Amino acid sequence: MNNSPVETRALVARGPFSEGKWAMEEVTLREIRDDEVLVEMVASGLCHTDLHCGDTPDDKGVPGVYYPRVLGHEGSGYVQQVGSAVTHVKPGDPVLLSFTHCGHCHVCKTGPVSHCTSFFKINFMGDPVFTPSPSQPNQQTLGGQFFGQSSFAQHTIASGKSVVNVDGLGLTRDDLKLLAPFGCGLLTGSGTVANVAKAGPEDAIAIMGMGGVGIAAVMAAKRLGCRQIIGVDRIPARLELAKKLGATHTIDTTHLTSVSGSGSGSSDLVDAIRRAADDLGPTVSIDASGHQPLVMAAVAATRHMGKIIQVGAGMPDAVVKLPMQAWMDTGKSYFGAVMGQCDTAEYIPRMIRWWKDGEFPFEELVQSFSFDDWEAAIDSMIKGTVVKPIMVW
Amino acid sequence: MNNSPVETRALVARGPFSEGKWAMEEVTLREIRDDEVLVEMVASGLCHTDLHCGDTPDDKGVPGVYYPRVLGHEGSGYVQQVGSAVTHVKPGDPVLLSFTHCGHCHVCKTGPVSHCTSFFKINFMGDPVFTPSPSQPNQQTLGGQFFGQSSFAQHTIASGKSVVNVDGLGLTRDDLKLLAPFGCGLLTGSGTVANVAKAGPEDAIAIMGMGGVGIAAVMAAKRLGCRQIIGVDRIPARLELAKKLGATHTIDTTHLTSVSGSGSGSSDLVDAIRRAADDLGPTVSIDASGHQPLVMAAVAATRHMGKIIQVGAGMPDAVVKLPMQAWMDTGKSYFGAVMGQCDTAEYIPRMIRWWKDGEFPFEELVQSFSFDDWEAAIDSMIKGTVVKPIMVW
Repeated sequence: MNNSPVETRALVARGPFSEGKWAMEEVTLREIRDDEVLVEMVASGLCHTDLHCGDTPDDKGVPGVYYPRVLGHEGSGYVQQVGSAVTHVKPGDPVLLSFTHCGHCHVCKTGPVSHCTSFFKINFMGDPVFTPSPSQPNQQTLGGQFFGQSSFAQHTIASGKSVVNVDGLGLTRDDLKLLAPFGCGLLTGSGTVANVAKAGPEDAIAIMGMGGVGIAAVMAAKRLGCRQIIGVDRIPARLELAKKLGATHTIDTTHLTSVSGSGSGSSDLVDAIRRAADDLGPTVSIDASGHQPLVMAAVAATRHMGKIIQVGAGMPDAVVKLPMQAWMDTGKSYFGAVMGQCDTAEYIPRMIRWWKDGEFPFEELVQSFSFDDWEAAIDSMIKGTVVKPIMVW
Repeated sequence: MNNSPVETRALVARGPFSEGKWAMEEVTLREIRDDEVLVEMVASGLCHTDLHCGDTPDDKGVPGVYYPRVLGHEGSGYVQQVGSAVTHVKPGDPVLLSFTHCGHCHVCKTGPVSHCTSFFKINFMGDPVFTPSPSQPNQQTLGGQFFGQSSFAQHTIASGKSVVNVDGLGLTRDDLKLLAPFGCGLLTGSGTVANVAKAGPEDAIAIMGMGGVGIAAVMAAKRLGCRQIIGVDRIPARLELAKKLGATHTIDTTHLTSVSGSGSGSSDLVDAIRRAADDLGPTVSIDASGHQPLVMAAVAATRHMGKIIQVGAGMPDAVVKLPMQAWMDTGKSYFGAVMGQCDTAEYIPRMIRWWKDGEFPFEELVQSFSFDDWEAAIDSMIKGTVVKPIMVW
């Protein structure tokens, strides 16, 4: 193991993106620890969570927001060094990066580790990894290991638990450029359908929000043979994309006079969703919007014994109101789910096999940018012109 | 099949109980239909739902409340006549009575039938069965088949779907006198633990409300080997009973300064429940109280990935408020459940076997009254001196 310091480049957030405080900088990596892996990055996916943590002022007390730091929590690359306690990868292995977990809490012991009781602390606060290069005047250590990885760097030190070995799947460097976003958004959307809903041919599934997570849910629902796949959004281009990738019905909320104000009440949206699902409502509704009125509509529309799964984070003070008596009567259930409750070592290779078989055509969602064009990549996501930008080194 | 009209006696509610409008009357049964069973009743359990429907004025617009009618929805007896379409019982069979369902909605087709989409209409509105005897001046038909049975009658015409055959279990008439309450409260409490929570030795279970349903849940949790069984109530005698029947911890809410005001916040009750469950909180919380603040405390106390199950009906306008973001993070789930989601034909005999093995000692909950002492039986339940009164013909 070579422990000499690595000089590299990283996209450093020294304040909110919209205040022009992100910049590509020369940085030095510290030595890797026993449970870590040094990865040469090939590409990174961009996700709204990067902007949540990198475009919010740090004087508002928003949890998980601080500067300076290196963000990025979806990535692909090749292993360069491995800590002595890491046994599942070796130098040269192609890897995808995903979230990390503590490994010793009561949830980690039984799974799913995405609900680790320290998830927020470990994934959102991270651990220092980068220092500005010696030539820089300010040697302040930069926040690293965002989601155990901080993938917006040409080389990074990742938590071993964030590293998924994809050796043996016949992936080229070009494949890795494309697969970079598999570790978060696509995993979340598709894993929620497969692992949490456990959906299959008997299911009618409604998905609120046709961003990367929602569209990945659509693709997984199609792969798993769901009878009806209902995509809800307000952006026509995204609804078109959803239709192309498997939605049997799409509902544009901008054409409706009422969305929802009540968990049991009716609205144009509730009626439209029910109609699309046998006039009974979905067996499974997934909220990938984080928008409370859409969640309430999903709750109301879902049929007796149906599941509603909360995947979108929403505003910190958002509350879902469930009528106690009707809840009992209808036998519905409301679940929370992070990262599709995936076992990444098993699930990411499964997604890759779907993709190789032409059954997970996520290329439709992505657009690649050179890492040097990081501003354009971020702008495309903010404007909604690209669902999932990928930045390539 | 003998179709001559049957003369019998029934406890008729002609208005609210507390207004003195219940009376034992002579009644005539109509002929049975193809899908019905004429049962000679041995005994009936009394449940708060009988009072909900029989002690509420009918001019308040409360759903399911009307007069005159015969209530009662837990009972035991012997089959006397069987409709031509009924194949699972024959005259002479001992039976227990439970709820009914439509048999053809999307839920009935796949189960659990206790979430039948017509459950309320069929079980709460019923179907006419009784007419006052010819000697009575008013020949107005009385509401019958409350929960498919209207068990407060010496003979009744039950929906075939309400009738559970318990032949072959070696039950005497005295056993039937005791087992009358198995069709609702005891089924609900114990079935929720067995079928909805699917609890076992790894579980720490908290149960809000130590009435018949809650205590049945305690007994089932003990039978299934749950590690911790935490009973919450405000009546010391009920907590004592819970302890005797299997609770490892009891919490008397009258000794606490704060119960709960928030689904994620803390309170004395939340802290006490967590402490009793490995300092992590229960893996399963069951609300058998219908009291919204207790539900909110259960939601807050339950550990990551834990289940909260709504069994108590609560006030019609009661709402449970779940914080969207914390819900997602913690992976908790909130379920509604009616009648323990039991398949009664399978589950009631299972409960009887537990009882015969000494592992479901529900005798501790009950007190028997002659049906002639129906007022004393009802008073004992209202005053809380008896958890589960049984009225015997």
